[in-house]
Amino acid sequence: MSKKIEVCLTPALIDLYDIEESIVVVIDILRATSSITYGIDNGAEAIIPVANVEDCLAYADKGFLLAAERNGEVVAGYDFGNSPFSYTKEKIGGKTVVLTTTNGTKALHLAQKRAYQVVIGSFLNLDSLCDYLKAQNKNVLLLCAGWKDQFNLEDTLFAGAVVENLRKSFEHYDDSSVAAEDLYALAKADLRKYLHKSSHSHRLAQLNIEEDVVFCLQLNICKTIPVLEGEKLVRLKP
Amino acid sequence: MSKKIEVCLTPALIDLYDIEESIVVVIDILRATSSITYGIDNGAEAIIPVANVEDCLAYADKGFLLAAERNGEVVAGYDFGNSPFSYTKEKIGGKTVVLTTTNGTKALHLAQKRAYQVVIGSFLNLDSLCDYLKAQNKNVLLLCAGWKDQFNLEDTLFAGAVVENLRKSFEHYDDSSVAAEDLYALAKADLRKYLHKSSHSHRLAQLNIEEDVVFCLQLNICKTIPVLEGEKLVRLKP
Repeated sequence: MSKKIEVCLTPALIDLYDIEESIVVVIDILRATSSITYGIDNGAEAIIPVANVEDCLAYADKGFLLAAERNGEVVAGYDFGNSPFSYTKEKIGGKTVVLTTTNGTKALHLAQKRAYQVVIGSFLNLDSLCDYLKAQNKNVLLLCAGWKDQFNLEDTLFAGAVVENLRKSFEHYDDSSVAAEDLYALAKADLRKYLHKSSHSHRLAQLNIEEDVVFCLQLNICKTIPVLEGEKLVRLKP
Repeated sequence: MSKKIEVCLTPALIDLYDIEESIVVVIDILRATSSITYGIDNGAEAIIPVANVEDCLAYADKGFLLAAERNGEVVAGYDFGNSPFSYTKEKIGGKTVVLTTTNGTKALHLAQKRAYQVVIGSFLNLDSLCDYLKAQNKNVLLLCAGWKDQFNLEDTLFAGAVVENLRKSFEHYDDSSVAAEDLYALAKADLRKYLHKSSHSHRLAQLNIEEDVVFCLQLNICKTIPVLEGEKLVRLKP
């Protein structure tokens, strides 16, 4: 079978794609899918993505860790925020974490409605993810979570990194795959420097999360692929 | 006033933008906005964009020229198709043309609902368009018509060309402007060669319109800026 890879630049465009027989890779580099990858890799039992702080509250008193931020600050009474540095073995090993992430949760839920499978991508697990996708006999849609339904650079760059890796194993490039791959080729020598041009990055700079950004742009420090099962993201069994 | 320039990558995303006080540039390089630019520049009195052949029929018997294609062929009984070579002085000087263009018409009508003004952009009138935009005290949204609501390369490249030209006169780049400008920088030395990578271009190659594509990628052979007035595109008065 000739397998197809496509890039959906924002969740607002997902209805344009046939994904019933596809693996959808959800991408929200700063910071949801990076923190999820790191957390599952560090032994979290599960991570439950929710869209907002109110949804997170519904999970209080269940023994879960609650992660919620507003304007870059941990919400009072919550265990931690969205920084990947909170997702270490010591903090989340064996635990279930409820993570508040607007763009990432929206993308995950939209994909889950129709896709064959929904997995999580980030620079942290790039090669493991690509090896997995190559080994499956399925089409792939790379779904950028974007920012409030808008295109963003960091998610597109990661999609481009995947396209670059998979180009020999997949066919039928769409225009957005071509663009993503070319942008990644421009940026990959210094992803952080490239992202300084980004509006989202400027916004993030104001939130004082520079260390998180640098962390999220590391390649292949994790081998785990989180997969969505029901409402929970868990480790994909090899 | 600090003026803002943004790029909307497909008409499906236009609701994300505040355009009430903006000039919206509609971009459908292959071939609608190129043919419209060339036609108005060559003295067409007006061009009326419609979405499909049936809508075009409603204008029969009004003395207008009717342009309609299906699968790259002129529809039987119509005067000509969408090739810019049909929009010469001899053929359309002083005439009103009804032009069938699915993606372009959709983008025009969506923009017209809310925008301060809607104008037409193509490589053929790049510099004139940019000079006009610089001289106005308005924000600018570059609206790519795309292909069936999907991202396409040729419209994005033109948006990038405008961003490159206007970068010193406008502020607040969004991520899609950054991406469009960088893709144009990669492509501009040989736009035709770059577009060979594009799925849309492959589709167009099958339609045997290579001469049209080459024509539509010429820079600055026209000085006219078509503007939407009611249902008609006419020459913007200096």
